[in-house]
Amino acid sequence: MLIVMSPEASADQIDAVCRRVRELGFTPNKIPGAGRTAIGITGNPGPVPPELFAHLPGVSECVRVTKPYKLVSRETKKEPTIIDIRNEKIGDGSLQIVAGPCSVESRDQIMKCAEVVQQSGAKFLRGGAFKPRTSPYLFQGLKDEGLKLLDEVKRNFDLRIVTEALNTETLDAVAQVADVIQIGARNMQNFTLLQAAGATKKAIVLKRGMSATLQELFLAGEYVLAQGNYNLILCERGIRTFETMTRNTFDLSAVVMMKHHTHLPVAADPSHGVGIDWAVPALAKASVMAGADVIMMEMHPDPARAMSDGQQSLDFPAYLKLAKELAELQKWKAGN
Amino acid sequence: MLIVMSPEASADQIDAVCRRVRELGFTPNKIPGAGRTAIGITGNPGPVPPELFAHLPGVSECVRVTKPYKLVSRETKKEPTIIDIRNEKIGDGSLQIVAGPCSVESRDQIMKCAEVVQQSGAKFLRGGAFKPRTSPYLFQGLKDEGLKLLDEVKRNFDLRIVTEALNTETLDAVAQVADVIQIGARNMQNFTLLQAAGATKKAIVLKRGMSATLQELFLAGEYVLAQGNYNLILCERGIRTFETMTRNTFDLSAVVMMKHHTHLPVAADPSHGVGIDWAVPALAKASVMAGADVIMMEMHPDPARAMSDGQQSLDFPAYLKLAKELAELQKWKAGN
Amino acid sequence: MLIVMSPEASADQIDAVCRRVRELGFTPNKIPGAGRTAIGITGNPGPVPPELFAHLPGVSECVRVTKPYKLVSRETKKEPTIIDIRNEKIGDGSLQIVAGPCSVESRDQIMKCAEVVQQSGAKFLRGGAFKPRTSPYLFQGLKDEGLKLLDEVKRNFDLRIVTEALNTETLDAVAQVADVIQIGARNMQNFTLLQAAGATKKAIVLKRGMSATLQELFLAGEYVLAQGNYNLILCERGIRTFETMTRNTFDLSAVVMMKHHTHLPVAADPSHGVGIDWAVPALAKASVMAGADVIMMEMHPDPARAMSDGQQSLDFPAYLKLAKELAELQKWKAGN
Amino acid sequence: MLIVMSPEASADQIDAVCRRVRELGFTPNKIPGAGRTAIGITGNPGPVPPELFAHLPGVSECVRVTKPYKLVSRETKKEPTIIDIRNEKIGDGSLQIVAGPCSVESRDQIMKCAEVVQQSGAKFLRGGAFKPRTSPYLFQGLKDEGLKLLDEVKRNFDLRIVTEALNTETLDAVAQVADVIQIGARNMQNFTLLQAAGATKKAIVLKRGMSATLQELFLAGEYVLAQGNYNLILCERGIRTFETMTRNTFDLSAVVMMKHHTHLPVAADPSHGVGIDWAVPALAKASVMAGADVIMMEMHPDPARAMSDGQQSLDFPAYLKLAKELAELQKWKAGN
Repeated sequence: MLIVMSPEASADQIDAVCRRVRELGFTPNKIPGAGRTAIGITGNPGPVPPELFAHLPGVSECVRVTKPYKLVSRETKKEPTIIDIRNEKIGDGSLQIVAGPCSVESRDQIMKCAEVVQQSGAKFLRGGAFKPRTSPYLFQGLKDEGLKLLDEVKRNFDLRIVTEALNTETLDAVAQVADVIQIGARNMQNFTLLQAAGATKKAIVLKRGMSATLQELFLAGEYVLAQGNYNLILCERGIRTFETMTRNTFDLSAVVMMKHHTHLPVAADPSHGVGIDWAVPALAKASVMAGADVIMMEMHPDPARAMSDGQQSLDFPAYLKLAKELAELQKWKAGN
Repeated sequence: MLIVMSPEASADQIDAVCRRVRELGFTPNKIPGAGRTAIGITGNPGPVPPELFAHLPGVSECVRVTKPYKLVSRETKKEPTIIDIRNEKIGDGSLQIVAGPCSVESRDQIMKCAEVVQQSGAKFLRGGAFKPRTSPYLFQGLKDEGLKLLDEVKRNFDLRIVTEALNTETLDAVAQVADVIQIGARNMQNFTLLQAAGATKKAIVLKRGMSATLQELFLAGEYVLAQGNYNLILCERGIRTFETMTRNTFDLSAVVMMKHHTHLPVAADPSHGVGIDWAVPALAKASVMAGADVIMMEMHPDPARAMSDGQQSLDFPAYLKLAKELAELQKWKAGN
Repeated sequence: MLIVMSPEASADQIDAVCRRVRELGFTPNKIPGAGRTAIGITGNPGPVPPELFAHLPGVSECVRVTKPYKLVSRETKKEPTIIDIRNEKIGDGSLQIVAGPCSVESRDQIMKCAEVVQQSGAKFLRGGAFKPRTSPYLFQGLKDEGLKLLDEVKRNFDLRIVTEALNTETLDAVAQVADVIQIGARNMQNFTLLQAAGATKKAIVLKRGMSATLQELFLAGEYVLAQGNYNLILCERGIRTFETMTRNTFDLSAVVMMKHHTHLPVAADPSHGVGIDWAVPALAKASVMAGADVIMMEMHPDPARAMSDGQQSLDFPAYLKLAKELAELQKWKAGN
Repeated sequence: MLIVMSPEASADQIDAVCRRVRELGFTPNKIPGAGRTAIGITGNPGPVPPELFAHLPGVSECVRVTKPYKLVSRETKKEPTIIDIRNEKIGDGSLQIVAGPCSVESRDQIMKCAEVVQQSGAKFLRGGAFKPRTSPYLFQGLKDEGLKLLDEVKRNFDLRIVTEALNTETLDAVAQVADVIQIGARNMQNFTLLQAAGATKKAIVLKRGMSATLQELFLAGEYVLAQGNYNLILCERGIRTFETMTRNTFDLSAVVMMKHHTHLPVAADPSHGVGIDWAVPALAKASVMAGADVIMMEMHPDPARAMSDGQQSLDFPAYLKLAKELAELQKWKAGN
């Protein structure tokens, strides 16, 4: 932390800031400048909130020097985190595909999807039983019935289940079925849910909030790791910007930043990122090259009749073609 | 809903879309154009999700014509909603001030604040017992102890309590003390919490999410009203943009839009909107002229030592000066 | 400038950075921290570009301490700048109204507007002769014919002319007629035009770019002042965000920031800020309370038939009512 | 264009709108709905500006149905545009690399770069002679001297020159040397410059503005094509969002949209997109998979001492490694 004093700050004001720093148990370091003085803080074990000083008389600005996150940081843990989910590894340099419908809609629909996902060679099926919907008038998922169907998939296919926990009330039921609990973008800063999900010790995929900075995503991850649960996957799924031609703005730089600054595996979700089915294949391949460990995709036996996200869901032939291409691209990448 | 077909759409594709519209119980209206055909849907009681059609062969675009929200809309209920909270009215053309610290920090701190708020003529005190914090390493509030202190304020002052419910686990405890339950920006789309809070029938102030469109805010409000609870106040508190000189971008147009499109009372929170104490007075006055029914403000006996939001909290003299100015401005406005 | 070294930076790397600082004629100040070292730079007369150091081995981050702008800053010139335009003052605490149509469309139209503007007591008429249009297929203005009509207004009414210079080619012609040259949002970083306009020594109103940070606006202003021309008015006209219910997001905090950080007069343009005629009055009044010296507004004899910006233009009765209310509000404000 | 009337619109108001549509030479098509009427417009040869109707009494909303751009659209010209620049093709499915320093800084620097670019197999060298800089205190380029050096590169290497035209004053000088004229992001809506550059008939690379929607970019391209110049390349270089960890938000979906909606070749500039040297390789490869025809990259003999953009410039070994990897990736892609 660097406290920058205003040009008019008096010697007394500067001393008062230094005293406050000492009161808090840290060490102030005065740095006299041409026009103004700055005070560096050292001796702090972790990050110091700027708000402790920003308001003291004569203070112009507080500048963070150390990063505010710690457990997720690659500075703290250098080796990459590898998560083992029933003998499938995430984060070890391989590429995992997570595919399935937005919502579980019926037994027939989810079994058809499971067959095609298994046929494609992917090891993970996604599907929502509880759906967060912007409007109360839209389909909210099959709920417990949906979980039962996912459990049936789990018992009958070599597929691991990724499904969303919407709230603490239904977390336990979700955790019974899910191999990976999804925390959705709208819940990225639902700290109660993050802690409860972390405490299950299940693997978690945490989607970046629609307008969350990467630093906020890392801090949200910190809530999970602070529960002693390191089985966390960070997921880029598009952010909100001024552009309206795509559903969101898919931020592939975020994948590169997550891999660089944290030790956690990273997922990319081009289906939500762009929101248009025909644009998914190009962006899925781009995600692989950007360094994603996991590609999450929506597919559906009949996208035109999907109860949610039909416009961004691949039909089966398109999905199978893409899964094959991704496997080939990954093979090429591993060999180069 | 208007379904715009692509220029190459065949007559069969157009017919298939019309059939699908009829299957869903609505009426398709073909509108032949120079280069392409559009199909208008009528006979729908409420909004129709575009995703039902967006993916059908030959469809180029689905354009919403009716608004997706209903209960909050001024088209549905023309007269403004007036909320009565222990004999203080919100939404009747008067101006209500809600003031207090970001967090309840101690008995001494909150009692001092309560005295000054009462002295200023305001009828509402705000203060957080449960605090959502971006980082797990920051102060999270006094929790139950904080609620007890707020209850003491309630019993000893002519002040109504506005305090945040962070999750469903603590909602009941909050609802016991709160006259107005605050749903924070990060929880604006926590639909579980919205429904549970709505079901308490308590008054609710719903803060706009950091990157929520007004339409999404209105739909979030719809979740509350759908519980039969019309005691809802919508609150603008700044949105996230590219600008970094202010904490958020305080969107006063939003206040004007909320008043125009809904029948609900509207609050403005310039403290969070701009995040800088010396900028709050000008923006509080601007908020009154923009049409806000309620001004929410943070104040603190010693902002430099506040445990959260010190940089945007007014000290007592600044708060008292501003409260007086706002009352005068409101008087002028009412007489003009 | 503060150069933050990475935790792994070697003593040699730190020394190399210090040497580079000295090479450039400045003084390095080493600030040893618990986990890493930072180097403060002093002795620099003006701002130092971070790019001079960001790439040196071992450097983690460069943090600006001094602001990069100088001439527009209130730290450099404490007293507010007052601009005199044919005996009307801008920036002296009074409120000036600038009103008129988006585009000059015909002699009849502009003369009607001039009459109403003069009748309202305003001293400035706006109107575009050259119009920047997103699409080449939209009306681009009457051009030289428009300038001639504005000149006729100037000679026949007690009105000062505010009109836009689109490019250096037409700058001289515009400068002949304009009392205040407008630089539009799209040209805020057209540095060639800024310098040429500055060199005319005419008063200039510089509109904030659609996605310009305030710091970038201040730096754009710096280009004008560096020509020795201090007759500059900064103008907030709405920024681009994710919100689509309003044309732009009108950022009134920006008005407060501009007044605080610079010595320049500040204009607010609620017509472009919100883009909806019925929302303009509330936001114009809010702008006055936020501290704007100038309110810019679009009006038209028949908004429904305006060739541009009809949806945000006030008709004459609405304009006259608002102008009267603004004058009263200003009177109240001056007396309080 | 679809004109949606408000629920309260009277039959007279609806008729008045229809009359206005007819007055303008188009055909109104009434579409009666349950709650309101809409009016479709047909018979218009091109796009109709919503502002012609938005303000008429009883009108609630105007919804565009046809796209406002035409010449750049793939609906107008189905086959992709291929540009031939001294026997190198852009847009024919091959991958072209454009590399070089941000600014031409000296003879020695640019010749060293040219050698390495040629050695890498790339056919295009970029380098700025005229630099637009946010602050007047930063390096503005070598100007005419820089152009001379680029001309020397052109004569001595098998390299085509890509360099920026900042304004119409220097456009001719730039056009003498440039094989491809760059229009920078800040000038994307400098319509005067777009038209003048278009009129040179030289190839142009048009960078997306920092907060330009894709539709605005397409319309800016329309200004160039309307000059009869189809040698246009659209370039994604990152947009402005709330995220601050990267310089911009690199929007790879935009590449996919540009390829889909227009017939023009598309460039991606990961250097500006992310602004961090070590993140460029992953994003360059991702750009290839997203479908870019051209990758633009900044490199420098000694990035730590670059006069601009050092933090995002690759050094020679990193550049050569990446150029090789891109060539291999392109080969793999072509074979799959």
